[in-house]
Amino acid sequence: MNSPTSSTDTTPAHPAWLPSSAFAAVGRRRVAVRGDGALVGTIAAEVAGATAAHGGSFTRLDPGSGVGDADLVLTLTEDDDAPGPDDGGSACDAEDESFRLLRDDGAVVVQSASDRGLLYGFFHVVRLGEAAFTGPDAVETHAPATPLRMLDHWDNVAVHDVMGQVERGYSGGSIFYADGEVRADLSRVEEYARLLASTGINRVAINNVNVHAREARLLTDGLPDVARIAAAFRPWGIRVHLAVSFAAPMTLGGLPTADPLDAGVARWWRDAADRVWARIPDFGGFVVKADSEGQPGPFAYGRDHADGANLLAAAVEPHDGLIHWRAFVYDHRQDWRDRSTDRARAAHDNFAPLDGRFADNVIVQVKHGPMDFQVREPISPVLAALPRTRVALELQVTQEYTGQQKHAVYLGRAWSEILRFDFLAGAATPPVPEPGTTTSSDIPPGPTTVAGLVANSGGLVAVSNAGDDEFWTGHPFAQANLYAYGRLCWDPAADPVGLLGEWIAMTFPGAAPGVAGAIHEILDDSWETYELYTAPLGVGFMVRPGHHYGPDVDGYEYTPWGTYHFADRDGIGVDRTVATGTGFAGLYPSPWREIYESAETCPDELLLFFHHVPYTHVLHSGKTVIQHIYDTHFEGVERVERFVATWSEARSSLPADAARLAARVTDRLTEQLRSATDWRDQLNTYFLRKSGVPDTHGRTIH
Amino acid sequence: MNSPTSSTDTTPAHPAWLPSSAFAAVGRRRVAVRGDGALVGTIAAEVAGATAAHGGSFTRLDPGSGVGDADLVLTLTEDDDAPGPDDGGSACDAEDESFRLLRDDGAVVVQSASDRGLLYGFFHVVRLGEAAFTGPDAVETHAPATPLRMLDHWDNVAVHDVMGQVERGYSGGSIFYADGEVRADLSRVEEYARLLASTGINRVAINNVNVHAREARLLTDGLPDVARIAAAFRPWGIRVHLAVSFAAPMTLGGLPTADPLDAGVARWWRDAADRVWARIPDFGGFVVKADSEGQPGPFAYGRDHADGANLLAAAVEPHDGLIHWRAFVYDHRQDWRDRSTDRARAAHDNFAPLDGRFADNVIVQVKHGPMDFQVREPISPVLAALPRTRVALELQVTQEYTGQQKHAVYLGRAWSEILRFDFLAGAATPPVPEPGTTTSSDIPPGPTTVAGLVANSGGLVAVSNAGDDEFWTGHPFAQANLYAYGRLCWDPAADPVGLLGEWIAMTFPGAAPGVAGAIHEILDDSWETYELYTAPLGVGFMVRPGHHYGPDVDGYEYTPWGTYHFADRDGIGVDRTVATGTGFAGLYPSPWREIYESAETCPDELLLFFHHVPYTHVLHSGKTVIQHIYDTHFEGVERVERFVATWSEARSSLPADAARLAARVTDRLTEQLRSATDWRDQLNTYFLRKSGVPDTHGRTIH
Repeated sequence: MNSPTSSTDTTPAHPAWLPSSAFAAVGRRRVAVRGDGALVGTIAAEVAGATAAHGGSFTRLDPGSGVGDADLVLTLTEDDDAPGPDDGGSACDAEDESFRLLRDDGAVVVQSASDRGLLYGFFHVVRLGEAAFTGPDAVETHAPATPLRMLDHWDNVAVHDVMGQVERGYSGGSIFYADGEVRADLSRVEEYARLLASTGINRVAINNVNVHAREARLLTDGLPDVARIAAAFRPWGIRVHLAVSFAAPMTLGGLPTADPLDAGVARWWRDAADRVWARIPDFGGFVVKADSEGQPGPFAYGRDHADGANLLAAAVEPHDGLIHWRAFVYDHRQDWRDRSTDRARAAHDNFAPLDGRFADNVIVQVKHGPMDFQVREPISPVLAALPRTRVALELQVTQEYTGQQKHAVYLGRAWSEILRFDFLAGAATPPVPEPGTTTSSDIPPGPTTVAGLVANSGGLVAVSNAGDDEFWTGHPFAQANLYAYGRLCWDPAADPVGLLGEWIAMTFPGAAPGVAGAIHEILDDSWETYELYTAPLGVGFMVRPGHHYGPDVDGYEYTPWGTYHFADRDGIGVDRTVATGTGFAGLYPSPWREIYESAETCPDELLLFFHHVPYTHVLHSGKTVIQHIYDTHFEGVERVERFVATWSEARSSLPADAARLAARVTDRLTEQLRSATDWRDQLNTYFLRKSGVPDTHGRTIH
Repeated sequence: MNSPTSSTDTTPAHPAWLPSSAFAAVGRRRVAVRGDGALVGTIAAEVAGATAAHGGSFTRLDPGSGVGDADLVLTLTEDDDAPGPDDGGSACDAEDESFRLLRDDGAVVVQSASDRGLLYGFFHVVRLGEAAFTGPDAVETHAPATPLRMLDHWDNVAVHDVMGQVERGYSGGSIFYADGEVRADLSRVEEYARLLASTGINRVAINNVNVHAREARLLTDGLPDVARIAAAFRPWGIRVHLAVSFAAPMTLGGLPTADPLDAGVARWWRDAADRVWARIPDFGGFVVKADSEGQPGPFAYGRDHADGANLLAAAVEPHDGLIHWRAFVYDHRQDWRDRSTDRARAAHDNFAPLDGRFADNVIVQVKHGPMDFQVREPISPVLAALPRTRVALELQVTQEYTGQQKHAVYLGRAWSEILRFDFLAGAATPPVPEPGTTTSSDIPPGPTTVAGLVANSGGLVAVSNAGDDEFWTGHPFAQANLYAYGRLCWDPAADPVGLLGEWIAMTFPGAAPGVAGAIHEILDDSWETYELYTAPLGVGFMVRPGHHYGPDVDGYEYTPWGTYHFADRDGIGVDRTVATGTGFAGLYPSPWREIYESAETCPDELLLFFHHVPYTHVLHSGKTVIQHIYDTHFEGVERVERFVATWSEARSSLPADAARLAARVTDRLTEQLRSATDWRDQLNTYFLRKSGVPDTHGRTIH
């Protein structure tokens, strides 16, 4: 199971960023691997494969033996308690994931105290390619910023009526499930585990947080199948987590209650946890979405989220398990007529009072923004509101609101900006890049940044964008998001455009130089491009209800979902000030509360999130709001037109074996252009009809 | 099979308008039935049941024998060629469906030349109740206005992903199909056939015009099941039709084409028709939706609708079969930016040039309005544009756009108005009733009215609203629509409020007088009530896309469906004039083309269908458009509030065995009030935000 196997589909899965050619620099060399432990076997198999393919040689050394004249040595440090040879099942126990890289005149040694660290070191060398051997002499230590680097899958076992096989999935079916069962052939899971391990991901939750009847049973009679999935991930240092239903003691256990303070309920959960760990000793823990969007939770019993989370925490504590408890809790039956209720406040209002009450092994998992993964939101104030609670940052790799992997949108820069947001030192926060520029920094995010707050706390979690699609992610370029997420978990200070460059270099190792340039041209600023042609100035949504693809300005305006823009003939935006609005701005520490409170100091890109202003309001950019709407929507489409032209030119430089990928990208860009045009025309028409203000440039608005 | 059987469900089906007590007047008397023929057997069984229940007596007389001292004689006329005793399978051959009613000092004789006519005469007497025997002496002849009185079912055999078991069905599952098969137990179909026969319906198409893979097979290996359904309808004088897919020669027959001019295709259809009629000698014919909303059709082969329809017509002609060819054809991929394309024109543009080219047994089936069953539309000009073609009027009993059987909306008055619309004598058309008044007329609609045009042509067709719901129709009051549709087919001149009275009297025979008054109070003007709180002044739609329930003003505004309102900050409406708009108004004969062309003469209730006007435009009512919107939406909700109060009072007078019905009505009224409030608030808010014009009465608009 250590070597990747191809899918049983007729078209083999695309190798993503790990094609054989990406291993050429290592594979050409004399490589020695030394040490025991399950993951050392994984590394050895990788090296054996690479050297066989590229003409190098591979030696497996016994512990304690000399390294000879190898060009590259991958070795467990021998003065440490590395996992012994008979300890294969628990390779993940070692918490030290760091590695050292020593380069001396082209000879490279990678050392780690743990087999996981050694695996990460191996992929580090692969990523460096020739530079690993030709760079200046060095001694470097690499360690992840956080030990918790996780992906959540919203995969359903049974196809859900509305949400399908994968909730918010835009990459075909599930790699885990098909036909209502866990797949018999898990070879795609093994390939996926390898891809994730190469970026540094070490935990995966394998089922949807909306736990339906079939999925709930993974916890009980589905355990043998979960164990098979865990076995597919294990050689890559990845632990498996399950999303569970808070009502499981009733629905699965037949108890009359799921009250978290009921002794029978506590016993049921303890027994359930004992059974899981007995079967899967390196199991990670449970993920829970409770009392949100119809999921059951502790509220039914007059208990709060701390009661609920601590119930489960006690059950998994003997096994060093974790509870990821989502903070995505709000009133989804809001009355749009009532402007005092604010969904943006909900997570804060629900969780801030509970700070200090959660058990040590509970992680409160907080979406990056207060709403729901919009292309632009302020940073959730909850991330800074729970100093005595372990908090994880939740991102969304799957592009629910950002083009659904039909649009080329590289999110690495968005996530980088989120991670660098400094709650206390507002002025020091890197400014939002102007369209056309790129973020680039190697300054580690400070302790009061988002990255700093979660690093030694709950780490990072994101919703995966991978499925059984030939290219894993629908849009081949969406692979870059999966890659960048993993790399940013390891190093939140990494330059996101640099990470994109890594992905390009590994994924297209044989392509002409112009290809990399073209992909950068398309993706570097694609996040802002998407923002340009969709909802303006941070107001969010304006998508088709339900599936969330394509424009519908009023789609959610008169619904119970709490996602409004309040546009009328005079102006637009949500007043979230303390002075006259919902008070959301006051949930931030200074200086942000003051910055957001005033329309004069609020950043343009969040203006309509915090303020209701006239269309004639003049932005810092010097434009009126209405002219900004027109200009950005025209510009967004023009940019996508350039994407199409750029790719059309570049794809001719791709090798023949990339023809299917090239065609897929072309198809998706065609759809992106159609959709962006739709966004432009609907948004501009909507606001022209409503405001009556003509475009100063006299362009066509219908 | 002649007597109704109860459903196998635990809760028996509500008897609708044929409870045993509705037969009391007949059942108390001495009744003689004379004649042979299959349907005479049906009548005899009905009379035997009624007299047994209510204390009368029943005599079955041989042909030619005397009638004795019976109070009621039901007799085939003996000097006519009534179906003989060995002709049981083809009772529907007799085209004469009329009957004579002779009343002489309380003794009543019903005569007919056909057993179907006698069945209708029997139910006529049942409807009259005691009045049949106590009215003045009379000799009356009753005949249907048209021989074609049909219901279409949009029932799927397999549950459709999006549309479910019954497309646009709001009454539970299908009475025909369950679990992907034709039901084994067709007792509900038998009960349904009896209900329909009592209103005069004589043809039923049993499957959805959107013919999916499973449904297509009814034509081939499903024939034995279709024959079983036909057998359930036959004792009630009802012939069965099938909706078929134009692509069937390919999908079912394995041919390489479905080209209507291909000899092999023609042969395939002839063979298919031969097989159907061999199995079901009284089969009615095929219903086809071609080249519309994704259904296959002749366009794929460069042929037109006449080519397509005539292909099928030739196949069924040897069996006296009919082809119902729907005129619901339009570009459902319209560009909202292009205001010159007009869905309202589509059926006319497609079909008017083909007039005279359709075979004699083709019926072009035309929706009553040019759009899609809105609560208010102008009459489709297509109905008058095909003088050399057989044309049927298509109505929608199922309340897709009129409250989905959650709202109490009696449509009899809407249909009556449609049937009486006079294409040539505009001034003579009965005016639209003011809210609070009711139509009442016994003047037969003239030859240039809709009723006159279709009577000797294609007759009437409607989409049924019945399902396996306990009350047949979801909302018990929606039974009245099914009842009134059948009765209006027979007599388009009938007073629709009178028909409602018939339904109430038969359905609630034991109720206190206040109950009938309350139901009239709720239903008489319920059509206008629904109009008041939904889309204003004929502009239509403004519903949630997809399911079409509840308000969403812009829901279809920027879609490809051709259903727009074009509201901006200054005004609203669709310019369909010849002078400056799409020219749709010009498709009418005079005087309507002139009446609709001018905003000054266009009836208020259709103003926004034909004209784009400022919110300040003054209606004939003296109100501005914007104030009309506010006023009607407030009034609509107030009316529904009165419905709730009226029913709350009335239900206490109902007998105990009506408790479930009473509760169902209460539940639905509660939902109607919630939904009407939603409509009011969203519409008023939308237009206040857009127009900026305050309500002159200062009421709350959010």
